[in-house]
Amino acid sequence: MDRILSLQKKIEELSLDAFLLEDPLDLYYLTGGSFSVGQLWMTSKKVLLLVDERYIQQAQESLSVPSCLKSWEASSKFVQENQIKSVGFDSSKTSFERVLELQKKLDSALSWKPVPRITQEMRKIKDANELSLIKKSSEILWQGYLYIKTLLKEGIKEKEVAKKFEIFCLEKGAEGLSFEPIIAFGENSALPHYRAGEKALKKGDIVLIDIGVIFNRYASDMTRVVFFGPPDPLLSSWLDFTILAQQAAIELCRPGTLVKDLDVKARSIFKKFEVEAYFVHGLGHGVGLEVHEAPRIRFDSEGGILKPGMVITIEPGLYLPGKGGVRYEDMIVITETGFENLFPFDKAVL
Amino acid sequence: MDRILSLQKKIEELSLDAFLLEDPLDLYYLTGGSFSVGQLWMTSKKVLLLVDERYIQQAQESLSVPSCLKSWEASSKFVQENQIKSVGFDSSKTSFERVLELQKKLDSALSWKPVPRITQEMRKIKDANELSLIKKSSEILWQGYLYIKTLLKEGIKEKEVAKKFEIFCLEKGAEGLSFEPIIAFGENSALPHYRAGEKALKKGDIVLIDIGVIFNRYASDMTRVVFFGPPDPLLSSWLDFTILAQQAAIELCRPGTLVKDLDVKARSIFKKFEVEAYFVHGLGHGVGLEVHEAPRIRFDSEGGILKPGMVITIEPGLYLPGKGGVRYEDMIVITETGFENLFPFDKAVL
Repeated sequence: MDRILSLQKKIEELSLDAFLLEDPLDLYYLTGGSFSVGQLWMTSKKVLLLVDERYIQQAQESLSVPSCLKSWEASSKFVQENQIKSVGFDSSKTSFERVLELQKKLDSALSWKPVPRITQEMRKIKDANELSLIKKSSEILWQGYLYIKTLLKEGIKEKEVAKKFEIFCLEKGAEGLSFEPIIAFGENSALPHYRAGEKALKKGDIVLIDIGVIFNRYASDMTRVVFFGPPDPLLSSWLDFTILAQQAAIELCRPGTLVKDLDVKARSIFKKFEVEAYFVHGLGHGVGLEVHEAPRIRFDSEGGILKPGMVITIEPGLYLPGKGGVRYEDMIVITETGFENLFPFDKAVL
Repeated sequence: MDRILSLQKKIEELSLDAFLLEDPLDLYYLTGGSFSVGQLWMTSKKVLLLVDERYIQQAQESLSVPSCLKSWEASSKFVQENQIKSVGFDSSKTSFERVLELQKKLDSALSWKPVPRITQEMRKIKDANELSLIKKSSEILWQGYLYIKTLLKEGIKEKEVAKKFEIFCLEKGAEGLSFEPIIAFGENSALPHYRAGEKALKKGDIVLIDIGVIFNRYASDMTRVVFFGPPDPLLSSWLDFTILAQQAAIELCRPGTLVKDLDVKARSIFKKFEVEAYFVHGLGHGVGLEVHEAPRIRFDSEGGILKPGMVITIEPGLYLPGKGGVRYEDMIVITETGFENLFPFDKAVL
């Protein structure tokens, strides 16, 4: 209920009468229940969860949040009884059509206030339980990476590696992948958002591996580069620069550091080696119930400061179209005094 | 380009100047390209796809739709050059926040018209290529079902079956599952939207199996019931009623039949056996790029008429909370003269 209390404070700060949350992920985060459809109403003092027949028994037996059967009448009653005039809704997750429907079905005098990403700030800070799930997620992921290295033989296709990795992680207890794996051979590694295709591995190829899994709803995300055969001199030195840039950013990881300073630091290292033009994306992002969540880590973003309990990726990279690219990504937990890196160091030549 | 032509006609019918589509699934359906982010602008005469650096090369080399680099300037230019005053957007897929952003970034005089589910009607009718992908998807699914039957041994847990099924289908060439498998033992089968939990299989349990996979982006969906040990007499007769209701509805499947009449027919069979109160959901839905798409098949829905090329599920069921439930679901292709059922008949006692 701490999470709900924290949102109730926010209702007051925004001078609203209520919040309405409908996103299943938010409902899970705030109530602990898994519902594909539901409504969580809250005022600064009261809270009511509305779910349908499928979930009502589960909700009433196992949740600490009061709940009742979902209907427009039940919503209207909550609005009336609590004299709600203004409702904040998550405009980033609510479709335009849904807003029209809410306006039509509920008191037409209600004022609907768009509040994007209502739970985003709270979700930046992970509690002990969340941290242990994220660690378990990253442990399965690391096993999956070690397994991928055993698959890298001449002739195997990117797609085969991706599929075998997925099956391996499911067998190891992952619920699924947190995103479609990026397995890029040779020049495909130069495309930061490549997935996995029909290209077959050949001697001398660089292999870029950007992967993630989900364990108990929590995501992980990691990138490593493997040289299959003698490393290309340019890409090999670029990997060294990238790891240096990453380490420099990680060393700044402690409570109080400005989030954007991490990106500024990594870029300054690239500048020293005169390769900053080849770093074409942000430095990283938060990880939790979503594989990409707040904060966004980039010199030009409002990312706030690092706080204990944050989990972020640090993933600089350098890309030369037509030739190849490198990226090196870890997940970093911000602790009371500094940081913990969830992945071991690895730089492999096979 | 036929699909785009058909939408261009719709722009004129709605007396709009343009459509803006941003949903990745719609972009794939209309252009054949895979983009996680993009904008498809169209007027009744012109069309322009905007994608970012990641995709621009692929778009310009392989698509028949003209494309350029995505930017607010490029969107504004298309609006100006084509003298667009009113734009229809898919209000079911566009967040409220995104509409505010479009209003702010583009010509403030533009009038934004919510048009929910712009591509829904076209997508009901599958072309030959789509049908062949859906058939392949259902073939893998059937293999997965036969595999599940081999797994049903005393003590296995619902979750284990679900996980092994997923791995099997990935190995057989599926890209993934079209939804989280429903594997329900015993009384869990009475919950139409149960998933798979910790319950272990024991002699005498009914097993409800509702599963689906994705192949080359196209979904499949099927339900079967297996009796593990001597069937419970009530549930066994309910399964017979359910199959009779399903067969009666399937026999009406031909071009020209009112979609809602399928549900009316199934309900009339249940009425004959005095069990209609236990049928608590709709009869079925379209299947294609999404596992649930138009038409919705229910006596009280506007579903239009059946047409050649539609692919629908027919899935009646009967549920007694605390005891158990049955459901029987096939995928039916509407042909020029009648129907084709994509799954073999199966009613198993193990």
